[in-house]
Amino acid sequence: MGRPRTPLLDRERITTTALQLVDEQGDFSVPQIAKRLGAQTGSVYHHVDGRDGIVELLRERVAAAIDPGTLDATPWDRALESWARSYRAAFAAHPRAIPLLMTSPVRAPGVLEQYERAVTLLRDAGFAPAAVMPLIIALENLVLGSALDLAAPETMWELTEDTPTPRLAEALAAVPEGRADRAFEVGLEALLNHARSHLTAGPPPAARR
Amino acid sequence: MGRPRTPLLDRERITTTALQLVDEQGDFSVPQIAKRLGAQTGSVYHHVDGRDGIVELLRERVAAAIDPGTLDATPWDRALESWARSYRAAFAAHPRAIPLLMTSPVRAPGVLEQYERAVTLLRDAGFAPAAVMPLIIALENLVLGSALDLAAPETMWELTEDTPTPRLAEALAAVPEGRADRAFEVGLEALLNHARSHLTAGPPPAARR
Repeated sequence: MGRPRTPLLDRERITTTALQLVDEQGDFSVPQIAKRLGAQTGSVYHHVDGRDGIVELLRERVAAAIDPGTLDATPWDRALESWARSYRAAFAAHPRAIPLLMTSPVRAPGVLEQYERAVTLLRDAGFAPAAVMPLIIALENLVLGSALDLAAPETMWELTEDTPTPRLAEALAAVPEGRADRAFEVGLEALLNHARSHLTAGPPPAARR
Repeated sequence: MGRPRTPLLDRERITTTALQLVDEQGDFSVPQIAKRLGAQTGSVYHHVDGRDGIVELLRERVAAAIDPGTLDATPWDRALESWARSYRAAFAAHPRAIPLLMTSPVRAPGVLEQYERAVTLLRDAGFAPAAVMPLIIALENLVLGSALDLAAPETMWELTEDTPTPRLAEALAAVPEGRADRAFEVGLEALLNHARSHLTAGPPPAARR
Protein backbone atom coordinates (compact mmCIF):
# COMPACT_ATOMS: atom_id res chain seq x y z
CA MET A 1 0.00 0.00 0.00
CA GLY A 2 1.42 3.34 -1.02
CA ARG A 3 4.40 1.56 -2.57
CA PRO A 4 4.06 1.00 -6.33
CA ARG A 5 4.23 -2.63 -7.37
CA THR A 6 6.56 -3.67 -10.18
CA PRO A 7 4.27 -3.79 -13.18
CA LEU A 8 3.68 -7.31 -14.38
CA LEU A 9 4.20 -6.26 -17.98
CA ASP A 10 6.19 -3.55 -19.65
CA ARG A 11 8.26 -3.42 -22.80
CA GLU A 12 11.52 -3.92 -20.92
CA ARG A 13 10.34 -7.12 -19.27
CA ILE A 14 8.78 -8.40 -22.50
CA THR A 15 12.08 -7.79 -24.32
CA THR A 16 14.14 -9.48 -21.61
CA THR A 17 11.87 -12.52 -21.68
CA ALA A 18 11.87 -12.71 -25.50
CA LEU A 19 15.68 -12.55 -25.53
CA GLN A 20 15.89 -15.33 -22.92
CA LEU A 21 13.67 -17.49 -25.11
CA VAL A 22 15.71 -16.73 -28.24
CA ASP A 23 18.97 -17.48 -26.39
CA GLU A 24 17.51 -20.82 -25.29
CA GLN A 25 15.69 -21.99 -28.40
CA GLY A 26 16.50 -19.64 -31.29
CA ASP A 27 12.98 -18.25 -31.48
CA PHE A 28 10.08 -17.02 -29.33
CA SER A 29 6.31 -16.92 -29.43
CA VAL A 30 4.05 -14.37 -27.80
CA PRO A 31 2.19 -17.06 -25.80
CA GLN A 32 5.54 -18.29 -24.44
CA ILE A 33 6.40 -14.77 -23.28
CA ALA A 34 2.98 -14.41 -21.65
CA LYS A 35 3.37 -17.74 -19.86
CA ARG A 36 6.79 -16.85 -18.42
CA LEU A 37 5.47 -13.50 -17.20
CA GLY A 38 2.32 -15.05 -15.76
CA ALA A 39 0.12 -12.96 -18.06
CA GLN A 40 -2.46 -13.49 -20.77
CA THR A 41 -1.22 -13.48 -24.38
CA GLY A 42 -3.64 -10.66 -25.18
CA SER A 43 -2.13 -8.51 -22.42
CA VAL A 44 1.33 -8.81 -23.98
CA TYR A 45 -0.10 -7.49 -27.26
CA HIS A 46 -1.32 -4.38 -25.44
CA HIS A 47 2.29 -3.32 -24.86
CA VAL A 48 3.93 -4.03 -28.21
CA ASP A 49 3.31 -3.63 -31.91
CA GLY A 50 2.68 -7.32 -32.56
CA ARG A 51 5.27 -10.06 -32.85
CA ASP A 52 7.25 -7.92 -35.32
CA GLY A 53 7.37 -5.17 -32.71
CA ILE A 54 8.99 -7.58 -30.25
CA VAL A 55 11.59 -8.52 -32.89
CA GLU A 56 12.47 -4.82 -33.17
CA LEU A 57 12.70 -4.48 -29.38
CA LEU A 58 15.12 -7.43 -29.47
CA ARG A 59 17.11 -5.70 -32.20
CA GLU A 60 17.35 -2.49 -30.15
CA ARG A 61 18.38 -4.47 -27.08
CA VAL A 62 21.14 -6.50 -28.80
CA ALA A 63 22.40 -3.49 -30.79
CA ALA A 64 22.50 -1.34 -27.63
CA ALA A 65 25.70 -3.21 -26.73
CA ILE A 66 27.44 -1.79 -29.81
CA ASP A 67 29.61 1.11 -28.59
CA PRO A 68 28.10 4.15 -30.32
CA GLY A 69 31.34 6.09 -29.94
CA THR A 70 33.15 3.82 -32.39
CA LEU A 71 31.64 5.62 -35.39
CA ASP A 72 33.08 8.95 -34.18
CA ALA A 73 36.70 7.79 -34.44
CA THR A 74 38.99 9.20 -37.12
CA PRO A 75 40.03 8.41 -39.73
CA TRP A 76 36.99 6.68 -41.25
CA ASP A 77 38.67 3.28 -41.59
CA ARG A 78 39.56 3.21 -37.91
CA ALA A 79 35.93 4.07 -37.10
CA LEU A 80 34.65 1.30 -39.40
CA GLU A 81 37.06 -1.20 -37.89
CA SER A 82 36.09 -0.33 -34.29
CA TRP A 83 32.41 -0.45 -35.16
CA ALA A 84 32.83 -3.92 -36.72
CA ARG A 85 34.61 -5.25 -33.63
CA SER A 86 31.98 -3.86 -31.27
CA TYR A 87 29.17 -5.12 -33.56
CA ARG A 88 30.65 -8.63 -33.53
CA ALA A 89 30.98 -8.66 -29.73
CA ALA A 90 27.38 -7.49 -29.26
CA PHE A 91 25.93 -10.22 -31.49
CA ALA A 92 28.33 -12.92 -30.26
CA ALA A 93 26.59 -12.55 -26.88
CA HIS A 94 23.31 -13.66 -28.54
CA PRO A 95 24.26 -15.91 -31.48
CA ARG A 96 20.82 -17.50 -31.72
CA ALA A 97 19.27 -14.09 -32.32
CA ILE A 98 21.37 -13.59 -35.47
CA PRO A 99 19.25 -15.58 -37.97
CA LEU A 100 16.04 -14.05 -36.61
CA LEU A 101 17.34 -10.47 -36.82
CA MET A 102 19.08 -10.98 -40.18
CA THR A 103 15.87 -12.11 -41.84
CA SER A 104 13.44 -9.50 -40.45
CA PRO A 105 13.24 -5.96 -41.86
CA VAL A 106 14.92 -3.27 -39.75
CA ARG A 107 12.43 -0.82 -38.21
CA ALA A 108 13.97 -0.10 -34.79
CA PRO A 109 14.64 3.69 -34.62
CA GLY A 110 17.93 3.40 -32.72
CA VAL A 111 19.25 0.87 -35.22
CA LEU A 112 18.17 2.93 -38.24
CA GLU A 113 20.01 5.88 -36.68
CA GLN A 114 23.13 3.74 -36.39
CA TYR A 115 22.93 2.88 -40.11
CA GLU A 116 22.48 6.57 -40.88
CA ARG A 117 25.68 7.32 -38.97
CA ALA A 118 27.62 4.50 -40.71
CA VAL A 119 26.42 5.69 -44.15
CA THR A 120 27.34 9.29 -43.26
CA LEU A 121 30.82 8.17 -42.19
CA LEU A 122 31.44 6.49 -45.54
CA ARG A 123 29.86 9.24 -47.65
CA ASP A 124 31.96 11.86 -45.86
CA ALA A 125 35.05 9.72 -46.47
CA GLY A 126 34.32 9.97 -50.19
CA PHE A 127 32.46 6.76 -51.09
CA ALA A 128 29.88 7.05 -53.86
CA PRO A 129 26.24 6.42 -52.81
CA ALA A 130 26.08 3.11 -54.72
CA ALA A 131 29.21 1.79 -53.00
CA VAL A 132 28.09 2.39 -49.42
CA MET A 133 25.44 -0.25 -48.70
CA PRO A 134 27.29 -3.11 -50.47
CA LEU A 135 30.33 -2.34 -48.30
CA ILE A 136 28.30 -2.10 -45.08
CA ILE A 137 26.37 -5.30 -45.86
CA ALA A 138 29.55 -7.21 -46.79
CA LEU A 139 31.04 -6.11 -43.46
CA GLU A 140 27.86 -7.19 -41.63
CA ASN A 141 27.87 -10.59 -43.34
CA LEU A 142 31.44 -11.14 -42.16
CA VAL A 143 30.70 -9.76 -38.67
CA LEU A 144 27.57 -11.87 -38.17
CA GLY A 145 29.10 -15.01 -39.72
CA SER A 146 32.05 -14.54 -37.36
CA ALA A 147 29.74 -13.94 -34.39
CA LEU A 148 28.00 -17.24 -35.14
CA ASP A 149 31.40 -18.88 -35.46
CA LEU A 150 32.28 -17.72 -31.94
CA ALA A 151 29.43 -19.94 -30.71
CA ALA A 152 31.03 -22.97 -32.42
CA PRO A 153 33.14 -25.46 -30.48
CA GLU A 154 36.88 -24.66 -30.42
CA THR A 155 37.51 -28.12 -31.90
CA MET A 156 35.28 -27.68 -34.93
CA TRP A 157 36.78 -30.44 -37.13
CA GLU A 158 36.78 -33.89 -35.55
CA LEU A 159 39.17 -35.94 -37.64
CA THR A 160 39.06 -39.74 -37.65
CA GLU A 161 41.26 -42.45 -39.12
CA ASP A 162 38.35 -43.58 -41.28
CA THR A 163 38.66 -40.41 -43.37
CA PRO A 164 42.33 -39.59 -43.97
CA THR A 165 42.79 -35.81 -44.01
CA PRO A 166 46.53 -35.24 -43.42
CA ARG A 167 46.70 -31.71 -44.84
CA LEU A 168 43.62 -30.57 -42.92
CA ALA A 169 45.23 -32.03 -39.78
CA GLU A 170 48.43 -30.09 -40.49
CA ALA A 171 46.55 -26.83 -41.17
CA LEU A 172 44.50 -27.21 -37.95
CA ALA A 173 47.62 -27.98 -35.89
CA ALA A 174 49.23 -24.79 -37.24
CA VAL A 175 46.47 -22.69 -35.58
CA PRO A 176 46.32 -24.30 -32.15
CA GLU A 177 43.89 -21.79 -30.62
CA GLY A 178 41.83 -18.70 -31.31
CA ARG A 179 40.97 -19.79 -34.85
CA ALA A 180 37.69 -17.83 -34.83
CA ASP A 181 39.47 -14.60 -33.89
CA ARG A 182 42.24 -15.18 -36.44
CA ALA A 183 39.69 -15.74 -39.20
CA PHE A 184 37.79 -12.59 -38.24
CA GLU A 185 41.03 -10.57 -38.37
CA VAL A 186 41.76 -11.89 -41.88
CA GLY A 187 38.28 -11.00 -43.12
CA LEU A 188 38.23 -7.59 -41.46
CA GLU A 189 41.67 -6.64 -42.80
CA ALA A 190 40.63 -7.83 -46.27
CA LEU A 191 37.49 -5.68 -46.29
CA LEU A 192 39.22 -2.59 -44.88
CA ASN A 193 42.06 -2.86 -47.41
CA HIS A 194 39.53 -3.34 -50.19
CA ALA A 195 37.58 -0.28 -49.08
CA ARG A 196 40.75 1.82 -48.83
CA SER A 197 41.90 0.80 -52.31
CA HIS A 198 38.43 1.41 -53.73
CA LEU A 199 38.54 4.93 -52.36
CA THR A 200 42.05 5.62 -53.65
CA ALA A 201 41.30 4.23 -57.11
CA GLY A 202 37.98 6.04 -57.53
CA PRO A 203 37.24 9.36 -59.18
CA PRO A 204 38.34 12.55 -57.37
CA PRO A 205 36.18 13.54 -54.39
CA ALA A 206 34.43 16.31 -56.31
CA ALA A 207 32.95 13.77 -58.72
CA ARG A 208 31.74 11.46 -55.98
CA ARG A 209 29.14 13.64 -54.33
CA MET B 1 3.93 -60.27 -51.76
CA GLY B 2 7.19 -60.85 -53.56
CA ARG B 3 7.50 -57.09 -54.05
CA PRO B 4 9.73 -55.37 -51.48
CA ARG B 5 7.98 -52.68 -49.49
CA THR B 6 9.57 -49.27 -49.12
CA PRO B 7 11.27 -49.45 -45.76
CA LEU B 8 9.60 -47.23 -43.20
CA LEU B 9 12.93 -45.98 -41.95
CA ASP B 10 16.32 -45.54 -43.53
CA ARG B 11 18.99 -42.89 -43.24
CA GLU B 12 17.87 -41.14 -46.41
CA ARG B 13 14.31 -40.70 -45.19
CA ILE B 14 15.46 -39.68 -41.71
CA THR B 15 17.73 -37.03 -43.27
CA THR B 16 14.98 -35.74 -45.57
CA THR B 17 12.57 -35.43 -42.66
CA ALA B 18 15.13 -33.74 -40.40
CA LEU B 19 15.90 -31.22 -43.16
CA GLN B 20 12.19 -30.48 -43.64
CA LEU B 21 11.88 -29.80 -39.91
CA VAL B 22 14.97 -27.54 -39.90
CA ASP B 23 13.69 -25.65 -42.95
CA GLU B 24 10.37 -25.11 -41.16
CA GLN B 25 11.47 -24.36 -37.61
CA GLY B 26 15.28 -24.01 -37.51
CA ASP B 27 15.78 -27.18 -35.49
CA PHE B 28 14.60 -30.79 -35.17
CA SER B 29 14.11 -33.38 -32.49
CA VAL B 30 14.32 -37.14 -32.89
CA PRO B 31 10.74 -37.65 -31.58
CA GLN B 32 9.50 -35.18 -34.24
CA ILE B 33 11.24 -37.18 -36.96
CA ALA B 34 9.76 -40.41 -35.62
CA LYS B 35 6.27 -38.90 -35.52
CA ARG B 36 6.46 -37.69 -39.13
CA LEU B 37 7.66 -41.10 -40.29
CA GLY B 38 5.04 -42.95 -38.23
CA ALA B 39 7.72 -44.75 -36.25
CA GLN B 40 8.85 -45.07 -32.65
CA THR B 41 11.63 -42.72 -31.46
CA GLY B 42 13.72 -45.72 -30.46
CA SER B 43 13.49 -47.12 -33.99
CA VAL B 44 14.99 -43.91 -35.43
CA TYR B 45 17.97 -44.30 -33.11
CA HIS B 46 18.62 -47.78 -34.58
CA HIS B 47 19.53 -46.17 -37.90
CA VAL B 48 21.69 -43.23 -36.86
CA ASP B 49 24.49 -42.35 -34.45
CA GLY B 50 22.32 -40.30 -32.11
CA ARG B 51 21.08 -36.78 -32.65
CA ASP B 52 24.63 -35.67 -33.53
CA GLY B 53 24.67 -38.32 -36.25
CA ILE B 54 21.55 -36.79 -37.80
CA VAL B 55 23.20 -33.35 -37.74
CA GLU B 56 26.10 -34.85 -39.74
CA LEU B 57 23.67 -36.46 -42.20
CA LEU B 58 22.12 -33.00 -42.64
CA ARG B 59 25.58 -31.53 -43.22
CA GLU B 60 26.37 -34.15 -45.88
CA ARG B 61 23.00 -33.53 -47.54
CA VAL B 62 23.30 -29.72 -47.67
CA ALA B 63 26.98 -29.81 -48.69
CA ALA B 64 26.24 -32.34 -51.44
CA ALA B 65 24.84 -29.41 -53.45
CA ILE B 66 28.30 -27.78 -53.53
CA ASP B 67 29.78 -28.54 -56.96
CA PRO B 68 32.85 -30.68 -56.17
CA GLY B 69 34.45 -29.77 -59.51
CA THR B 70 34.93 -26.14 -58.43
CA LEU B 71 38.03 -27.01 -56.40
CA ASP B 72 39.71 -28.52 -59.50
CA ALA B 73 39.71 -25.24 -61.44
CA THR B 74 42.95 -23.41 -62.12
CA PRO B 75 44.45 -21.12 -61.04
CA TRP B 76 43.84 -21.55 -57.31
CA ASP B 77 42.03 -18.23 -56.87
CA ARG B 78 39.51 -19.12 -59.58
CA ALA B 79 38.91 -22.44 -57.82
CA LEU B 80 38.43 -20.72 -54.46
CA GLU B 81 36.05 -18.19 -55.98
CA SER B 82 33.93 -20.87 -57.70
CA TRP B 83 33.84 -22.96 -54.55
CA ALA B 84 32.65 -19.95 -52.52
CA ARG B 85 29.86 -19.22 -55.00
CA SER B 86 28.67 -22.84 -55.05
CA TYR B 87 28.97 -23.07 -51.24
CA ARG B 88 26.79 -19.96 -50.84
CA ALA B 89 24.13 -21.29 -53.22
CA ALA B 90 23.99 -24.66 -51.42
CA PHE B 91 23.45 -23.08 -48.00
CA ALA B 92 21.14 -20.34 -49.27
CA ALA B 93 18.71 -23.17 -50.13
CA HIS B 94 18.56 -24.05 -46.40
CA PRO B 95 19.27 -20.84 -44.45
CA ARG B 96 17.75 -22.13 -41.23
CA ALA B 97 20.27 -25.00 -41.20
CA ILE B 98 23.19 -22.55 -41.11
CA PRO B 99 23.26 -21.77 -37.34
CA LEU B 100 22.79 -25.45 -36.48
CA LEU B 101 25.61 -26.61 -38.77
CA MET B 102 27.95 -23.72 -37.88
CA THR B 103 27.81 -24.55 -34.19
CA SER B 104 28.20 -28.35 -34.33
CA PRO B 105 31.59 -30.02 -34.88
CA VAL B 106 32.22 -31.36 -38.38
CA ARG B 107 32.39 -35.17 -38.52
CA ALA B 108 30.72 -35.96 -41.85
CA PRO B 109 33.30 -37.84 -43.99
CA GLY B 110 32.29 -36.21 -47.29
CA VAL B 111 32.57 -32.75 -45.75
CA LEU B 112 35.94 -33.47 -44.12
CA GLU B 113 37.16 -34.62 -47.55
CA GLN B 114 36.01 -31.32 -49.03
CA TYR B 115 38.03 -29.40 -46.41
CA GLU B 116 41.03 -31.61 -47.18
CA ARG B 117 40.73 -30.63 -50.84
CA ALA B 118 40.37 -26.91 -50.07
CA VAL B 119 43.40 -27.01 -47.74
CA THR B 120 45.40 -28.89 -50.40
CA LEU B 121 44.47 -26.29 -53.01
CA LEU B 122 45.81 -23.47 -50.83
CA ARG B 123 48.92 -25.34 -49.65
CA ASP B 124 49.79 -26.20 -53.25
CA ALA B 125 49.28 -22.54 -54.19
CA GLY B 126 51.97 -21.64 -51.65
CA PHE B 127 50.08 -20.63 -48.50
CA ALA B 128 51.81 -21.41 -45.19
CA PRO B 129 50.03 -23.97 -42.98
CA ALA B 130 49.08 -21.32 -40.39
CA ALA B 131 47.49 -19.10 -43.05
CA VAL B 132 45.16 -21.70 -44.54
CA MET B 133 42.39 -22.23 -41.98
CA PRO B 134 42.00 -18.52 -41.09
CA LEU B 135 41.50 -17.80 -44.80
CA ILE B 136 39.04 -20.67 -45.30
CA ILE B 137 37.08 -19.76 -42.15
CA ALA B 138 36.97 -16.06 -43.09
CA LEU B 139 35.61 -17.08 -46.49
CA GLU B 140 33.04 -19.37 -44.85
CA ASN B 141 31.91 -16.61 -42.46
CA LEU B 142 31.32 -14.33 -45.43
CA VAL B 143 29.66 -17.11 -47.48
CA LEU B 144 27.33 -18.19 -44.67
CA GLY B 145 26.56 -14.64 -43.57
CA SER B 146 25.68 -13.88 -47.21
CA ALA B 147 23.60 -17.05 -47.50
CA LEU B 148 21.57 -15.95 -44.47
CA ASP B 149 21.26 -12.50 -46.03
CA LEU B 150 19.72 -14.07 -49.14
CA ALA B 151 16.85 -15.19 -46.90
CA ALA B 152 16.25 -11.57 -45.80
CA PRO B 153 13.53 -9.45 -47.36
CA GLU B 154 14.64 -7.42 -50.39
CA THR B 155 13.45 -4.30 -48.54
CA MET B 156 15.53 -4.81 -45.42
CA TRP B 157 15.44 -1.23 -44.10
CA GLU B 158 11.96 0.19 -43.54
CA LEU B 159 12.42 3.92 -43.20
CA THR B 160 9.80 6.12 -41.54
CA GLU B 161 9.38 9.84 -41.16
CA ASP B 162 9.62 9.42 -37.38
CA THR B 163 13.32 8.62 -37.73
CA PRO B 164 14.93 10.89 -40.33
CA THR B 165 17.64 8.96 -42.20
CA PRO B 166 18.25 10.93 -45.42
CA ARG B 167 21.71 9.55 -46.19
CA LEU B 168 20.61 5.95 -45.56
CA ALA B 169 17.66 6.61 -47.90
CA GLU B 170 20.02 7.95 -50.58
CA ALA B 171 22.41 5.01 -50.20
CA LEU B 172 19.54 2.48 -50.41
CA ALA B 173 18.09 4.20 -53.48
CA ALA B 174 21.49 3.97 -55.19
CA VAL B 175 21.30 0.14 -55.06
CA PRO B 176 17.73 -0.43 -56.24
CA GLU B 177 17.95 -4.23 -56.45
CA GLY B 178 20.21 -7.20 -55.86
CA ARG B 179 21.81 -5.65 -52.77
CA ALA B 180 22.60 -9.08 -51.28
CA ASP B 181 24.45 -10.19 -54.41
CA ARG B 182 26.32 -6.89 -54.69
CA ALA B 183 27.45 -7.14 -51.08
CA PHE B 184 28.61 -10.73 -51.58
CA GLU B 185 30.65 -9.67 -54.62
CA VAL B 186 32.35 -6.92 -52.60
CA GLY B 187 33.24 -9.32 -49.80
CA LEU B 188 34.40 -12.08 -52.14
CA GLU B 189 36.59 -9.74 -54.19
CA ALA B 190 38.06 -8.29 -50.99
CA LEU B 191 39.00 -11.71 -49.63
CA LEU B 192 40.41 -12.97 -52.94
CA ASN B 193 42.50 -9.81 -53.40
CA HIS B 194 43.72 -10.09 -49.82
CA ALA B 195 44.70 -13.73 -50.34
CA ARG B 196 46.50 -12.92 -53.61
CA SER B 197 48.46 -10.08 -52.02
CA HIS B 198 49.29 -12.25 -48.99
CA LEU B 199 50.75 -14.85 -51.33
CA THR B 200 52.74 -12.32 -53.36
CA ALA B 201 54.12 -10.60 -50.27
CA GLY B 202 55.08 -13.81 -48.45
CA PRO B 203 58.41 -15.67 -48.40
CA PRO B 204 59.51 -17.54 -51.54
CA PRO B 205 57.66 -20.82 -52.21
CA ALA B 206 60.61 -22.95 -51.07
CA ALA B 207 60.38 -21.44 -47.58
CA ARG B 208 56.65 -21.94 -47.30
CA ARG B 209 56.46 -25.71 -47.29
